[in-house]
Amino acid sequence: MARPCILVCNDDGIDAAGILSLASAMTALGDIFVVAPVEEQSAVGHAISMRVPVRARNWPFDAGGPSLMAAYAVRGTPADCVKIAIDKLMPRSPDLVVSGINHGANTAVNVLYSGTVSAATEASILGIDAVAFSLCGYRDGADFGPAADVAAAVARGVLERGLPPGVLLNVNVPSGSRDQIRGALVTRQARARWEEEFVERFDPFNERYYWLSGRFVDLDGGSNTDLWAIANDYVSITPLHHDLTANEAVAELSRLDWL
Amino acid sequence: MARPCILVCNDDGIDAAGILSLASAMTALGDIFVVAPVEEQSAVGHAISMRVPVRARNWPFDAGGPSLMAAYAVRGTPADCVKIAIDKLMPRSPDLVVSGINHGANTAVNVLYSGTVSAATEASILGIDAVAFSLCGYRDGADFGPAADVAAAVARGVLERGLPPGVLLNVNVPSGSRDQIRGALVTRQARARWEEEFVERFDPFNERYYWLSGRFVDLDGGSNTDLWAIANDYVSITPLHHDLTANEAVAELSRLDWL
Repeated sequence: MARPCILVCNDDGIDAAGILSLASAMTALGDIFVVAPVEEQSAVGHAISMRVPVRARNWPFDAGGPSLMAAYAVRGTPADCVKIAIDKLMPRSPDLVVSGINHGANTAVNVLYSGTVSAATEASILGIDAVAFSLCGYRDGADFGPAADVAAAVARGVLERGLPPGVLLNVNVPSGSRDQIRGALVTRQARARWEEEFVERFDPFNERYYWLSGRFVDLDGGSNTDLWAIANDYVSITPLHHDLTANEAVAELSRLDWL
Repeated sequence: MARPCILVCNDDGIDAAGILSLASAMTALGDIFVVAPVEEQSAVGHAISMRVPVRARNWPFDAGGPSLMAAYAVRGTPADCVKIAIDKLMPRSPDLVVSGINHGANTAVNVLYSGTVSAATEASILGIDAVAFSLCGYRDGADFGPAADVAAAVARGVLERGLPPGVLLNVNVPSGSRDQIRGALVTRQARARWEEEFVERFDPFNERYYWLSGRFVDLDGGSNTDLWAIANDYVSITPLHHDLTANEAVAELSRLDWL
Protein backbone atom coordinates (compact mmCIF):
# COMPACT_ATOMS: atom_id res chain seq x y z
CA MET A 1 0.00 0.00 0.00
CA ALA A 2 1.17 3.53 -0.70
CA ARG A 3 2.35 5.55 2.27
CA PRO A 4 -0.50 7.51 3.81
CA CYS A 5 -0.68 11.21 3.06
CA ILE A 6 -1.01 13.35 6.20
CA LEU A 7 -1.98 17.02 6.29
CA VAL A 8 -0.42 18.87 9.23
CA CYS A 9 -1.88 22.20 10.36
CA ASN A 10 -2.23 24.31 13.51
CA ASP A 11 -3.34 27.66 14.87
CA ASP A 12 -0.12 28.84 16.50
CA GLY A 13 1.43 29.60 13.12
CA ILE A 14 3.75 27.75 10.77
CA ASP A 15 6.91 28.61 12.71
CA ALA A 16 5.61 27.45 16.10
CA ALA A 17 7.60 24.76 17.89
CA GLY A 18 4.52 22.57 18.24
CA ILE A 19 3.95 22.08 14.51
CA LEU A 20 7.62 21.26 13.94
CA SER A 21 7.35 18.50 16.55
CA LEU A 22 4.08 17.22 15.15
CA ALA A 23 5.33 17.15 11.55
CA SER A 24 8.49 15.32 12.62
CA ALA A 25 6.46 12.74 14.52
CA MET A 26 4.26 12.12 11.46
CA THR A 27 7.19 11.30 9.15
CA ALA A 28 7.32 7.79 10.64
CA LEU A 29 3.76 7.23 9.44
CA GLY A 30 3.51 8.74 5.99
CA ASP A 31 4.21 11.59 3.61
CA ILE A 32 3.38 14.94 5.10
CA PHE A 33 1.99 18.15 3.71
CA VAL A 34 2.08 21.22 5.96
CA VAL A 35 -0.42 24.09 5.61
CA ALA A 36 -0.59 26.51 8.51
CA PRO A 37 -1.31 30.17 9.21
CA VAL A 38 1.57 32.56 8.65
CA GLU A 39 0.74 34.18 11.99
CA GLU A 40 -0.74 32.98 15.25
CA GLN A 41 -4.54 32.50 15.07
CA SER A 42 -5.38 31.42 18.60
CA ALA A 43 -8.98 31.63 19.77
CA VAL A 44 -10.36 32.27 16.30
CA GLY A 45 -12.77 29.37 16.74
CA HIS A 46 -14.30 28.16 13.51
CA ALA A 47 -13.81 31.44 11.66
CA ILE A 48 -13.47 31.35 7.88
CA SER A 49 -12.43 34.17 5.54
CA MET A 50 -15.37 35.41 3.53
CA ARG A 51 -14.70 39.14 3.20
CA VAL A 52 -10.94 39.01 2.75
CA PRO A 53 -9.04 36.87 0.27
CA VAL A 54 -6.85 33.98 1.35
CA ARG A 55 -3.20 33.84 0.31
CA ALA A 56 -0.85 30.86 0.37
CA ARG A 57 2.87 30.70 -0.31
CA ASN A 58 5.52 28.03 -0.30
CA TRP A 59 7.37 27.95 2.97
CA PRO A 60 10.85 26.59 3.80
CA PHE A 61 9.56 24.30 6.52
CA ASP A 62 12.29 22.97 8.76
CA ALA A 63 11.02 19.48 9.55
CA GLY A 64 9.88 16.36 7.76
CA GLY A 65 13.01 15.60 5.76
CA PRO A 66 12.36 13.45 2.69
CA SER A 67 8.79 12.76 3.86
CA LEU A 68 7.86 16.42 3.42
CA MET A 69 5.82 16.85 0.23
CA ALA A 70 5.49 20.64 0.59
CA ALA A 71 4.68 23.36 3.10
CA TYR A 72 2.55 26.46 2.70
CA ALA A 73 2.04 29.46 4.93
CA VAL A 74 -1.49 30.81 4.64
CA ARG A 75 -2.89 34.25 5.37
CA GLY A 76 -6.14 32.97 6.79
CA THR A 77 -7.68 31.02 9.64
CA PRO A 78 -6.98 27.39 10.60
CA ALA A 79 -10.26 26.31 8.95
CA ASP A 80 -9.20 28.21 5.80
CA CYS A 81 -5.92 26.27 5.83
CA VAL A 82 -7.69 22.93 5.71
CA LYS A 83 -10.16 24.05 3.05
CA ILE A 84 -7.55 25.49 0.71
CA ALA A 85 -5.09 22.64 1.30
CA ILE A 86 -7.65 20.11 0.16
CA ASP A 87 -9.19 22.13 -2.68
CA LYS A 88 -6.09 23.79 -4.16
CA LEU A 89 -2.71 22.96 -2.66
CA MET A 90 -2.48 19.20 -2.19
CA PRO A 91 -2.01 16.79 -5.10
CA ARG A 92 -4.57 14.45 -3.52
CA SER A 93 -6.93 14.39 -0.56
CA PRO A 94 -5.16 13.44 2.70
CA ASP A 95 -5.82 10.19 4.55
CA LEU A 96 -5.51 11.98 7.88
CA VAL A 97 -5.43 15.57 9.13
CA VAL A 98 -3.54 16.37 12.33
CA SER A 99 -3.62 19.77 14.01
CA GLY A 100 -1.27 21.17 16.63
CA ILE A 101 0.57 20.57 18.78
CA ASN A 102 -1.13 23.50 20.44
CA HIS A 103 0.80 25.26 23.16
CA GLY A 104 -1.86 25.15 25.88
CA ALA A 105 -4.80 22.92 26.75
CA ASN A 106 -7.93 22.71 24.61
CA THR A 107 -10.20 21.15 27.18
CA ALA A 108 -13.80 21.79 28.26
CA VAL A 109 -15.43 24.90 26.76
CA ASN A 110 -12.10 25.98 25.25
CA VAL A 111 -12.84 23.48 22.50
CA LEU A 112 -15.29 26.04 21.08
CA TYR A 113 -12.71 28.84 20.98
CA SER A 114 -9.87 26.72 19.67
CA GLY A 115 -8.46 27.21 16.20
CA THR A 116 -6.50 23.97 16.63
CA VAL A 117 -9.68 21.98 17.11
CA SER A 118 -11.53 23.88 14.37
CA ALA A 119 -8.95 22.77 11.79
CA ALA A 120 -9.60 19.15 12.73
CA THR A 121 -13.36 19.78 12.77
CA GLU A 122 -13.19 21.24 9.27
CA ALA A 123 -11.43 18.11 8.04
CA SER A 124 -14.05 15.92 9.67
CA ILE A 125 -16.84 17.91 8.02
CA LEU A 126 -15.10 17.18 4.72
CA GLY A 127 -15.17 13.47 5.54
CA ILE A 128 -11.50 13.04 6.50
CA ASP A 129 -10.28 11.47 9.77
CA ALA A 130 -8.75 14.17 11.96
CA VAL A 131 -7.08 14.62 15.33
CA ALA A 132 -6.26 17.81 17.27
CA PHE A 133 -3.32 17.69 19.69
CA SER A 134 -2.63 20.07 22.55
CA LEU A 135 0.07 20.20 25.19
CA CYS A 136 -1.35 21.34 28.52
CA GLY A 137 0.69 24.09 30.13
CA TYR A 138 1.78 27.51 28.97
CA ARG A 139 5.43 27.56 30.01
CA ASP A 140 7.85 29.11 27.51
CA GLY A 141 10.27 26.61 26.06
CA ALA A 142 7.91 23.72 26.71
CA ASP A 143 9.12 20.25 25.68
CA PHE A 144 6.83 18.97 22.93
CA GLY A 145 8.65 15.62 22.82
CA PRO A 146 6.29 13.55 25.00
CA ALA A 147 3.24 15.02 23.23
CA ALA A 148 4.81 14.23 19.86
CA ASP A 149 5.26 10.58 20.96
CA VAL A 150 1.59 10.49 21.95
CA ALA A 151 0.64 12.07 18.61
CA ALA A 152 2.53 9.39 16.70
CA ALA A 153 0.82 6.60 18.63
CA VAL A 154 -2.69 8.06 18.30
CA ALA A 155 -2.26 8.93 14.62
CA ARG A 156 -0.99 5.40 13.92
CA GLY A 157 -4.08 3.97 15.59
CA VAL A 158 -6.37 6.20 13.56
CA LEU A 159 -4.62 5.35 10.28
CA GLU A 160 -4.91 1.63 11.06
CA ARG A 161 -8.47 1.50 12.39
CA GLY A 162 -10.17 4.66 11.12
CA LEU A 163 -12.64 6.70 13.15
CA PRO A 164 -16.42 6.35 13.35
CA PRO A 165 -18.12 8.49 10.66
CA GLY A 166 -18.37 12.16 11.62
CA VAL A 167 -16.12 11.76 14.67
CA LEU A 168 -12.80 13.54 15.25
CA LEU A 169 -10.48 13.25 18.24
CA ASN A 170 -9.43 16.04 20.57
CA VAL A 171 -6.26 14.90 22.34
CA ASN A 172 -4.79 16.76 25.30
CA VAL A 173 -1.43 15.69 26.71
CA PRO A 174 -0.32 16.53 30.25
CA SER A 175 2.89 18.50 30.58
CA GLY A 176 5.77 16.63 32.16
CA SER A 177 7.90 13.74 31.04
CA ARG A 178 6.76 10.62 29.18
CA ASP A 179 7.30 8.59 32.39
CA GLN A 180 4.82 10.74 34.28
CA ILE A 181 2.00 9.95 31.82
CA ARG A 182 -0.12 7.18 33.35
CA GLY A 183 -1.92 6.20 30.14
CA ALA A 184 -4.77 7.42 27.95
CA LEU A 185 -8.46 7.84 28.81
CA VAL A 186 -11.34 8.36 26.40
CA THR A 187 -13.23 11.26 27.94
CA ARG A 188 -16.08 13.70 27.45
CA GLN A 189 -15.85 17.50 27.28
CA ALA A 190 -16.16 18.85 30.85
CA ARG A 191 -18.79 21.45 31.71
CA ALA A 192 -17.01 24.69 32.49
CA ARG A 193 -17.02 28.38 31.69
CA TRP A 194 -14.84 31.45 31.82
CA GLU A 195 -16.01 34.13 34.21
CA GLU A 196 -14.92 37.31 32.54
CA GLU A 197 -13.05 40.07 34.27
CA PHE A 198 -12.22 42.47 31.45
CA VAL A 199 -9.18 44.57 32.32
CA GLU A 200 -9.74 48.24 31.60
CA ARG A 201 -6.98 50.46 30.21
CA PHE A 202 -6.68 53.88 28.58
CA ASP A 203 -4.64 54.54 25.46
CA PRO A 204 -2.45 57.67 25.02
CA PHE A 205 -5.48 59.44 23.50
CA ASN A 206 -7.46 58.78 26.68
CA GLU A 207 -9.74 56.28 24.95
CA ARG A 208 -10.82 53.32 27.03
CA TYR A 209 -10.10 49.77 25.88
CA TYR A 210 -10.41 46.32 27.41
CA TRP A 211 -8.38 43.13 27.55
CA LEU A 212 -10.39 39.94 27.70
CA SER A 213 -9.38 38.21 30.89
CA GLY A 214 -11.05 35.90 33.33
CA ARG A 215 -11.15 32.98 35.62
CA PHE A 216 -11.78 29.43 34.43
CA VAL A 217 -14.55 27.72 36.41
CA ASP A 218 -14.98 23.94 36.36
CA LEU A 219 -18.70 23.19 36.77
CA ASP A 220 -18.26 19.46 36.37
CA GLY A 221 -17.59 16.94 39.10
CA GLY A 222 -17.15 13.98 36.77
CA SER A 223 -14.13 11.69 36.62
CA ASN A 224 -14.65 10.83 32.94
CA THR A 225 -13.89 14.33 31.65
CA ASP A 226 -10.96 15.86 29.78
CA LEU A 227 -10.18 18.09 32.77
CA TRP A 228 -10.09 15.14 35.16
CA ALA A 229 -7.81 13.11 32.91
CA ILE A 230 -5.25 15.92 32.59
CA ALA A 231 -5.35 16.71 36.31
CA ASN A 232 -4.58 13.04 36.96
CA ASP A 233 -1.68 12.71 34.49
CA TYR A 234 -3.60 10.87 31.79
CA VAL A 235 -3.70 11.73 28.09
CA SER A 236 -7.30 12.80 27.35
CA ILE A 237 -8.85 11.57 24.10
CA THR A 238 -12.26 13.16 23.53
CA PRO A 239 -14.33 12.10 20.52
CA LEU A 240 -16.05 15.21 19.12
CA HIS A 241 -18.60 15.74 16.37
CA HIS A 242 -19.96 18.75 14.54
CA ASP A 243 -23.65 18.18 15.09
CA LEU A 244 -24.54 20.72 17.77
CA THR A 245 -28.15 19.56 18.13
CA ALA A 246 -29.21 19.09 21.75
CA ASN A 247 -31.03 15.87 20.85
CA GLU A 248 -32.26 15.32 24.39
CA ALA A 249 -34.28 18.54 24.17
CA VAL A 250 -36.01 17.93 20.83
CA ALA A 251 -38.96 15.92 22.15
CA GLU A 252 -39.67 18.24 25.07
CA LEU A 253 -39.52 21.39 22.94
CA SER A 254 -41.63 19.80 20.20
CA ARG A 255 -44.60 19.60 22.56
CA LEU A 256 -44.73 23.38 23.02
CA ASP A 257 -46.54 26.04 20.99
CA TRP A 258 -43.99 28.43 19.49
CA LEU A 259 -45.86 30.78 17.12
CA MET B 1 -42.61 41.49 38.33
CA ALA B 2 -40.02 43.81 36.82
CA ARG B 3 -39.83 43.93 33.04
CA PRO B 4 -37.33 41.42 31.70
CA CYS B 5 -33.97 42.73 30.56
CA ILE B 6 -33.02 41.56 27.06
CA LEU B 7 -29.58 41.80 25.49
CA VAL B 8 -29.72 42.18 21.70
CA CYS B 9 -26.64 41.39 19.60
CA ASN B 10 -25.71 40.17 16.11
CA ASP B 11 -22.85 39.59 13.71
CA ASP B 12 -23.96 41.77 10.80
CA GLY B 13 -23.02 44.94 12.70
CA ILE B 14 -24.92 47.45 14.80
CA ASP B 15 -26.33 49.34 11.82
CA ALA B 16 -27.71 46.27 10.04
CA ALA B 17 -31.44 46.22 9.26
CA GLY B 18 -31.86 42.88 11.02
CA ILE B 19 -30.83 44.10 14.47
CA LEU B 20 -33.09 47.15 14.19
CA SER B 21 -36.03 44.82 13.49
CA LEU B 22 -35.08 42.45 16.29
CA ALA B 23 -34.61 45.22 18.86
CA SER B 24 -37.96 46.76 17.90
CA ALA B 25 -39.69 43.40 18.26
CA MET B 26 -38.21 42.92 21.73
CA THR B 27 -39.57 46.21 23.10
CA ALA B 28 -42.97 44.56 23.57
CA LEU B 29 -41.35 42.07 25.94
CA GLY B 30 -38.90 44.00 28.07
CA ASP B 31 -36.18 46.58 28.40
CA ILE B 32 -33.50 46.15 25.80
CA PHE B 33 -29.76 46.64 25.82
CA VAL B 34 -27.98 46.51 22.45
CA VAL B 35 -24.32 45.49 22.10
CA ALA B 36 -23.15 44.63 18.59
CA PRO B 37 -20.02 44.78 16.45
CA VAL B 38 -19.27 48.13 14.84
CA GLU B 39 -18.57 46.27 11.58
CA GLU B 40 -19.87 43.10 9.97
CA GLN B 41 -18.38 39.94 11.53
CA SER B 42 -19.98 37.20 9.45
CA ALA B 43 -18.43 33.72 9.52
CA VAL B 44 -16.17 34.50 12.46
CA GLY B 45 -17.51 31.45 14.27
CA HIS B 46 -16.78 31.42 17.98
CA ALA B 47 -13.75 33.69 17.72
CA ILE B 48 -12.82 35.79 20.74
CA SER B 49 -10.28 38.61 20.95
CA MET B 50 -7.21 37.57 22.89
CA ARG B 51 -4.37 39.36 21.10
CA VAL B 52 -6.13 42.63 20.36
CA PRO B 53 -8.02 44.79 22.84
CA VAL B 54 -11.78 45.21 22.70
CA ARG B 55 -13.33 48.66 22.48
CA ALA B 56 -16.92 49.69 23.15
CA ARG B 57 -18.62 53.01 22.63
CA ASN B 58 -22.08 54.41 23.11
CA TRP B 59 -24.08 54.29 19.92
CA PRO B 60 -27.11 56.35 18.84
CA PHE B 61 -29.24 53.27 18.15
CA ASP B 62 -32.32 54.02 16.12
CA ALA B 63 -34.82 51.54 17.58
CA GLY B 64 -36.27 50.58 20.92
CA GLY B 65 -37.77 53.92 21.95
CA PRO B 66 -38.27 54.26 25.70
CA SER B 67 -37.48 50.54 26.20
CA LEU B 68 -33.90 51.08 25.07
CA MET B 69 -31.58 51.11 28.08
CA ALA B 70 -28.42 51.77 26.04
CA ALA B 71 -26.59 50.67 22.90
CA TYR B 72 -22.89 50.04 22.38
CA ALA B 73 -20.87 49.40 19.24
CA VAL B 74 -17.98 47.06 19.92
CA ARG B 75 -14.73 46.56 18.07
CA GLY B 76 -14.65 42.81 18.55
CA THR B 77 -16.40 39.58 17.67
CA PRO B 78 -20.02 38.62 18.45
CA ALA B 79 -18.81 36.42 21.33
CA ASP B 80 -16.77 39.39 22.64
CA CYS B 81 -19.96 41.50 22.54
CA VAL B 82 -21.81 39.13 24.83
CA LYS B 83 -18.88 38.74 27.21
CA ILE B 84 -18.22 42.45 27.60
CA ALA B 85 -21.93 43.34 27.76
CA ILE B 86 -22.42 41.05 30.72
CA ASP B 87 -19.14 41.77 32.51
CA LYS B 88 -18.81 45.51 31.95
CA LEU B 89 -21.57 47.33 30.10
CA MET B 90 -24.92 46.17 31.48
CA PRO B 91 -26.23 47.27 34.88
CA ARG B 92 -27.42 43.72 35.54
CA SER B 93 -27.24 40.32 33.90
CA PRO B 94 -29.87 39.90 31.16
CA ASP B 95 -32.81 37.49 31.45
CA LEU B 96 -32.52 36.64 27.76
CA VAL B 97 -30.00 37.15 24.97
CA VAL B 98 -31.25 37.37 21.38
CA SER B 99 -28.94 37.48 18.37
CA GLY B 100 -29.74 38.52 14.82
CA ILE B 101 -31.78 38.81 12.80
CA ASN B 102 -29.09 37.44 10.53
CA HIS B 103 -29.39 38.21 6.83
CA GLY B 104 -29.06 34.66 5.52
CA ALA B 105 -29.75 31.16 6.82
CA ASN B 106 -27.76 29.60 9.65
CA THR B 107 -28.74 26.01 9.03
CA ALA B 108 -26.81 22.71 8.92
CA VAL B 109 -23.02 23.04 9.14
CA ASN B 110 -23.27 26.83 8.80
CA VAL B 111 -24.11 26.84 12.50
CA LEU B 112 -20.39 26.28 13.17
CA TYR B 113 -19.29 29.26 11.07
CA SER B 114 -21.99 31.62 12.28
CA GLY B 115 -21.20 34.61 14.43
CA THR B 116 -24.93 35.06 15.07
CA VAL B 117 -25.17 31.62 16.63
CA SER B 118 -21.89 32.02 18.51
CA ALA B 119 -23.23 35.07 20.35
CA ALA B 120 -26.19 33.01 21.58
CA THR B 121 -23.88 30.09 22.39
CA GLU B 122 -21.67 32.36 24.47
CA ALA B 123 -24.70 33.51 26.48
CA SER B 124 -25.75 29.90 27.02
CA ILE B 125 -22.26 29.01 28.26
CA LEU B 126 -22.67 31.83 30.76
CA GLY B 127 -25.95 30.29 31.93
CA ILE B 128 -28.36 32.70 30.23
CA ASP B 129 -31.24 31.64 27.95
CA ALA B 130 -30.44 32.62 24.39
CA VAL B 131 -31.92 32.48 20.89
CA ALA B 132 -30.29 33.13 17.49
CA PHE B 133 -32.56 34.31 14.66
CA SER B 134 -31.82 34.18 10.95
CA LEU B 135 -33.84 35.13 7.89
CA CYS B 136 -33.25 32.67 5.07
CA GLY B 137 -32.46 34.35 1.80
CA TYR B 138 -29.82 36.84 0.71
CA ARG B 139 -31.86 39.32 -1.30
CA ASP B 140 -30.97 43.00 -0.78
CA GLY B 141 -33.74 44.98 0.88
CA ALA B 142 -35.18 41.84 2.50
CA ASP B 143 -38.28 42.34 4.66
CA PHE B 144 -37.38 41.43 8.25
CA GLY B 145 -40.99 41.98 9.39
CA PRO B 146 -42.20 38.36 9.37
CA ALA B 147 -38.99 37.16 11.04
CA ALA B 148 -39.36 39.87 13.69
CA ASP B 149 -42.89 38.63 14.44
CA VAL B 150 -41.52 35.11 14.82
CA ALA B 151 -38.73 36.43 17.06
CA ALA B 152 -41.25 38.13 19.34
CA ALA B 153 -43.30 34.94 19.67
CA VAL B 154 -40.34 32.67 20.32
CA ALA B 155 -38.68 35.09 22.76
CA ARG B 156 -41.98 35.43 24.66
CA GLY B 157 -42.18 31.65 24.96
CA VAL B 158 -38.62 31.43 26.24
CA LEU B 159 -39.14 34.22 28.78
CA GLU B 160 -42.31 32.52 30.08
CA ARG B 161 -41.11 28.91 30.14
CA GLY B 162 -37.30 29.07 30.14
CA LEU B 163 -35.08 26.64 28.28
CA PRO B 164 -33.61 23.33 29.46
CA PRO B 165 -30.21 23.89 31.13
CA GLY B 166 -27.37 24.27 28.63
CA VAL B 167 -29.73 24.53 25.64
CA LEU B 168 -30.03 27.49 23.26
CA LEU B 169 -32.30 27.85 20.25
CA ASN B 170 -31.26 28.39 16.66
CA VAL B 171 -34.26 29.78 14.79
CA ASN B 172 -34.35 30.08 11.01
CA VAL B 173 -37.28 31.83 9.34
CA PRO B 174 -38.24 31.24 5.69
CA SER B 175 -38.26 34.30 3.47
CA GLY B 176 -41.66 35.30 2.21
CA SER B 177 -44.70 36.78 3.87
CA ARG B 178 -46.15 35.84 7.27
CA ASP B 179 -49.06 34.11 5.47
CA GLN B 180 -46.70 31.77 3.65
CA ILE B 181 -45.22 30.44 6.92
CA ARG B 182 -46.96 27.14 7.71
CA GLY B 183 -45.90 26.94 11.36
CA ALA B 184 -42.86 26.04 13.43
CA LEU B 185 -41.01 22.73 13.66
CA VAL B 186 -38.46 21.69 16.27
CA THR B 187 -35.64 20.25 14.18
CA ARG B 188 -32.12 18.88 14.27
CA GLN B 189 -29.06 20.26 12.46
CA ALA B 190 -28.91 18.66 9.00
CA ARG B 191 -25.79 16.85 7.83
CA ALA B 192 -24.21 18.88 5.05
CA ARG B 193 -20.93 20.35 3.90
CA TRP B 194 -19.51 22.98 1.61
CA GLU B 195 -17.48 21.64 -1.28
CA GLU B 196 -14.88 24.28 -1.82
CA GLU B 197 -14.06 25.77 -5.16
CA PHE B 198 -11.61 28.54 -4.30
CA VAL B 199 -11.61 31.22 -6.97
CA GLU B 200 -8.09 32.19 -8.01
CA ARG B 201 -7.18 35.79 -8.86
CA PHE B 202 -4.01 37.83 -9.29
CA ASP B 203 -3.47 41.22 -7.69
CA PRO B 204 -1.84 44.16 -9.54
CA PHE B 205 1.54 42.96 -8.25
CA ASN B 206 0.97 39.59 -9.89
CA GLU B 207 0.56 37.82 -6.55
CA ARG B 208 -2.00 35.03 -6.47
CA TYR B 209 -4.90 35.14 -4.01
CA TYR B 210 -8.06 33.13 -3.47
CA TRP B 211 -11.69 33.79 -2.64
CA LEU B 212 -13.40 31.14 -0.57
CA SER B 213 -16.29 29.89 -2.63
CA GLY B 214 -18.14 26.66 -2.98
CA ARG B 215 -21.21 24.59 -3.38
CA PHE B 216 -23.45 23.60 -0.48
CA VAL B 217 -24.13 19.87 -0.40
CA ASP B 218 -27.01 18.43 1.64
CA LEU B 219 -25.96 14.96 2.83
CA ASP B 220 -29.12 14.42 4.84
CA GLY B 221 -32.35 12.87 3.64
CA GLY B 222 -34.26 13.49 6.87
CA SER B 223 -37.55 15.36 7.17
CA ASN B 224 -36.86 16.50 10.74
CA THR B 225 -33.94 18.80 9.85
CA ASP B 226 -33.52 22.56 9.72
CA LEU B 227 -33.00 22.38 5.95
CA TRP B 228 -36.20 20.41 5.41
CA ALA B 229 -38.26 22.80 7.54
CA ILE B 230 -37.08 25.87 5.63
CA ALA B 231 -37.55 24.19 2.23
CA ASN B 232 -41.13 23.44 3.27
CA ASP B 233 -42.02 26.92 4.54
CA TYR B 234 -41.77 26.14 8.25
CA VAL B 235 -39.88 28.12 10.86
CA SER B 236 -37.04 25.85 12.04
CA ILE B 237 -36.30 25.81 15.79
CA THR B 238 -33.18 23.75 16.53
CA PRO B 239 -32.11 23.23 20.14
CA LEU B 240 -28.32 23.42 20.31
CA HIS B 241 -25.80 22.83 23.08
CA HIS B 242 -22.10 23.50 23.51
CA ASP B 243 -20.97 20.04 24.47
CA LEU B 244 -19.29 18.74 21.33
CA THR B 245 -18.63 15.24 22.73
CA ALA B 246 -19.63 12.47 20.34
CA ASN B 247 -21.11 10.48 23.22
CA GLU B 248 -22.10 7.57 20.99
CA ALA B 249 -18.40 6.97 20.22
CA VAL B 250 -17.04 7.01 23.79
CA ALA B 251 -17.68 3.35 24.62
CA GLU B 252 -16.34 2.02 21.30
CA LEU B 253 -13.16 4.11 21.45
CA SER B 254 -12.60 3.25 25.13
CA ARG B 255 -12.08 -0.38 24.21
CA LEU B 256 -9.05 0.39 22.03
CA ASP B 257 -5.37 0.69 22.96
CA TRP B 258 -4.15 4.22 22.20
CA LEU B 259 -0.61 4.53 23.56
